[in-house]
Amino acid sequence: MKTFWHDRYALRTQSMKGSAIRELLKITQMPDIISFAGGMPAPEIFPVEEFKQACTRVLDEHGPEALQYGTTDGYVPLREMIARHTNQYGIKVTAENVMITTGSQQALDLIGRIFINPGDRILTESPTYLGAIQAWTAYNAQYVTVPLDDHGIQVDKLEQALRTGPKFMYILPNFQNPTGVTISLERRQELVNLADKYGVPIIEDDPYGQLRYEGKHLPALELLDDQLHANNGSYHGNVIYLSTFSKTLAPGIRLAWVIATPEIIQKLVMAKQGADLHTSTFNQIVAYEVSRKGFLDEHIKKINTVYKERRDIMLEELENNMPEGVKWTKPHGGLFLWVSLPEVCNTVEILPKAVEKKVAFVPGTSFYPDGSGKNTMRLNFSNAQPDKIRIGIRRLAETIKETIC
Amino acid sequence: MKTFWHDRYALRTQSMKGSAIRELLKITQMPDIISFAGGMPAPEIFPVEEFKQACTRVLDEHGPEALQYGTTDGYVPLREMIARHTNQYGIKVTAENVMITTGSQQALDLIGRIFINPGDRILTESPTYLGAIQAWTAYNAQYVTVPLDDHGIQVDKLEQALRTGPKFMYILPNFQNPTGVTISLERRQELVNLADKYGVPIIEDDPYGQLRYEGKHLPALELLDDQLHANNGSYHGNVIYLSTFSKTLAPGIRLAWVIATPEIIQKLVMAKQGADLHTSTFNQIVAYEVSRKGFLDEHIKKINTVYKERRDIMLEELENNMPEGVKWTKPHGGLFLWVSLPEVCNTVEILPKAVEKKVAFVPGTSFYPDGSGKNTMRLNFSNAQPDKIRIGIRRLAETIKETIC
Repeated sequence: MKTFWHDRYALRTQSMKGSAIRELLKITQMPDIISFAGGMPAPEIFPVEEFKQACTRVLDEHGPEALQYGTTDGYVPLREMIARHTNQYGIKVTAENVMITTGSQQALDLIGRIFINPGDRILTESPTYLGAIQAWTAYNAQYVTVPLDDHGIQVDKLEQALRTGPKFMYILPNFQNPTGVTISLERRQELVNLADKYGVPIIEDDPYGQLRYEGKHLPALELLDDQLHANNGSYHGNVIYLSTFSKTLAPGIRLAWVIATPEIIQKLVMAKQGADLHTSTFNQIVAYEVSRKGFLDEHIKKINTVYKERRDIMLEELENNMPEGVKWTKPHGGLFLWVSLPEVCNTVEILPKAVEKKVAFVPGTSFYPDGSGKNTMRLNFSNAQPDKIRIGIRRLAETIKETIC
Repeated sequence: MKTFWHDRYALRTQSMKGSAIRELLKITQMPDIISFAGGMPAPEIFPVEEFKQACTRVLDEHGPEALQYGTTDGYVPLREMIARHTNQYGIKVTAENVMITTGSQQALDLIGRIFINPGDRILTESPTYLGAIQAWTAYNAQYVTVPLDDHGIQVDKLEQALRTGPKFMYILPNFQNPTGVTISLERRQELVNLADKYGVPIIEDDPYGQLRYEGKHLPALELLDDQLHANNGSYHGNVIYLSTFSKTLAPGIRLAWVIATPEIIQKLVMAKQGADLHTSTFNQIVAYEVSRKGFLDEHIKKINTVYKERRDIMLEELENNMPEGVKWTKPHGGLFLWVSLPEVCNTVEILPKAVEKKVAFVPGTSFYPDGSGKNTMRLNFSNAQPDKIRIGIRRLAETIKETIC
C-alpha cells in the first residue's frame, strides 16, 4: 500500500543520484574482494591508542562540556589550532576565518546552499570529485569543465570557460581526487591571475595536501591570491579553502574545516544552524587533544611512509602487468591514481568482470560532470595492504587483457 | 576590500535567519546570568563515566572500524537497537525503517530537502519548534498554523487548515517545544483520523517522549496511524517519526534517528550522502556501547528525578512570585514551560531588562511562523540548578512587575 508521502517528493529529488562509490561499497565489503574502489585511509594505522588516551583525558577534564551542545562555528581552541596551522603556510588567518564542518562533504553542501541558484554554472576540472558534483547537483547547478593533464588543469583552456560566467571555480590542486595529479606552480599562478582577470572566485579543496611522498610542497591558491592582491600578504578572501582531518587523523570522527572571510563564515554558520546545529563537541575536543602537542605532524610522517610504499607497489605492478595501450598517472601524494584504457574501452562494462575476478575499482565516468571518460578508472592505493595490491593489480590486468575493447 | 564572493550569494540566503536562541546563547554564557533561554540538558548528570568506559571498550575492540568511514544509513547494531526500542511501543519496524542522522536538526533538513518545493505549505502547531521553521524556511516553505491549548493542538481548528492543502503536518505530541503541552489521547486519535481523511502525512517529532514526570505514556501518532490502516498493526508509514539521543544520552555526540518506510529512508539516504556522507561512526558505536545493556532506561529514571524536581521548583516559584494576569503551562515532562503575560506586553522588549537583572528567557514570538505571540516566553527548567531556578524566577517576576505593559 502506498503512503501519503509517495507522490509528495520535491522536484529536486529528481536530480539526486546515489553515489556510484557508495553503492559499490556494498559489493566491495565482501571479504574476498580486493577493492581499489573506495577512498578510505588504511585503518591499521589509525592512532587508536592516542584516541583512547584523548577520550579519557577529555572526559576526565571536560566531560560535561564535551557532551553538551556547542556553538555552530566550532570549538574555539580547535579553530585557533587550524588557524595557526594555516599561518605556517604564509596565510594570515585567525580563528574568525575558520568554521568546523561535519566532514568536508558538509562544507561542499553549505557552499552550495549559500551560493548556488538553480542553473548557476560551476567551473570544475574534468574529471573532478564526485562528492562535489553530488552536493551541488542537489542545488540544480550546471557545470563548465576544463580538462586536466599530468600537470593539472589545462590553464590554456581556462579562459574560454571563464568567459561563460561561472559562479565560482572548484579546484583540487594537490593529488586530485580522482586523478592524483598536482597543479604545477606555473599553472597555479596563471589560474589565480585568470580568476582575478575574470572576477571569478575559487573553492580550493585540499584534503590530501599534507600526504606528499616526493617533491616539494607547492603554495596554496589561497596564498597566491593573497600575494596578488594585498601588499602585506594579508588574507584576501577570493579563495575559500577546505581541508579535513579525515585523511590525517580519521574519517570516522567527521571533522573538516572551511577558511573564508568572516562575512562568508557568518553565512555558512547560518546555513549550518539549519543543517545540523553544530558538529559533535566531543569529537572536536578529542581531535584537539589528539593533535595539539605536535602528534599530527609525526603521525603524518607515518602515513606517508605507508602510503608511499603502497603507491610504489601499485605503480610497479601496473608497469609489469598492464597490456600496451593502458596509461596511468604517477601521483606525488594522496590516495589515488588514474588509469586510462584505449578509447574504445568502457570501464563500466569491465567492472562486473573485474568483480568476478575479485577486484574492484571506480569507473571514471562517475567523475565527469558530462558523463564522458568511459575508458578511465580510479584506483585507490591507501586502503589495501601491499600483497593485496600486487594480487589485485594482476587480477585487474588479466581482466583488461581478456576484455576485447 | 570586497571579495568576488560578495555579490554572489544565492537568493535563498535572503530567507536564512540566524536563530534567536543561538544569538542569545552568547549573552547567556556569561557566568553571572541565570539562563532559562537554552534547551540544554543538565550537564552535571551526563553519564561521563559510562562514556569513558565505552570509548575505551570501543577503541579496544572496534578501533579501526570506529574511526573509519561508515555507511550513510548508520551503524546496523544501533539501528537494530532503535527498532527494538520502537517495537516496545507496539510499532512494528525493523532496522530497514531506521536511519541515523547528525542530530534531529539534520533529519528536519533532509525532510525539507526531499519533500519541500518552494511555496509548499507546511501545517504546524502555533507556536512550534524554531529549528523546524529554520530548516524549512531555507527551502522556501510557507506555513499554515493551528493554535494549541493545554491539551495540545486544537483539532477543531485543524480541518480548516487541512483544506488549504498542506504538504505535510509537523507535530510535537509530547511536552512540546516550546510550550511543554502534550496532546491528549482523544485529540491524537482525531488528528490521525483527519490526516487520513485529507490524505496529509505527518512528521511526528518526539525528542522528549521518555522524559515524563507524571501521568501515563500516550500512544504515538505513528501507532494510531498503524492501527487505523493495517489489520495486523504492521508499520504503515503515513507518519515519519523522529527522535534523538540528545536528551536521554548527550547532545554533544549529535545522534538522532528517523523512522520511515524503506522508500523514504532510501531518498533520505541519498540526500544525506550529499549533505555529510554519514554520521560519525565512532559516536554511533560508542552510543550503542553505552546504551545496549539497559543503561539508558536506568539513566532516564535519574534524569526524570532531577528534571521533575526542577520543574516543581519552577512552578512553585512562578506561583509564589508572578503578578496577577501572568499564566503558565504545567508540563508533565520535557524541558520547557510557557509563560503568557497580558496581551499588551512584549517579551522582546522585556528581555533586555531581564538580562540587566541577570536572568534570560526566549521571547515566544521566535516560535510563531507568523511572528505573533509577542506576550509569551519560553522557560527551560532542565539546565539550571534548583537554587538558581528560585533566584532566577524571582528576578524574572521582579522584571515583569516593574514593566508597565
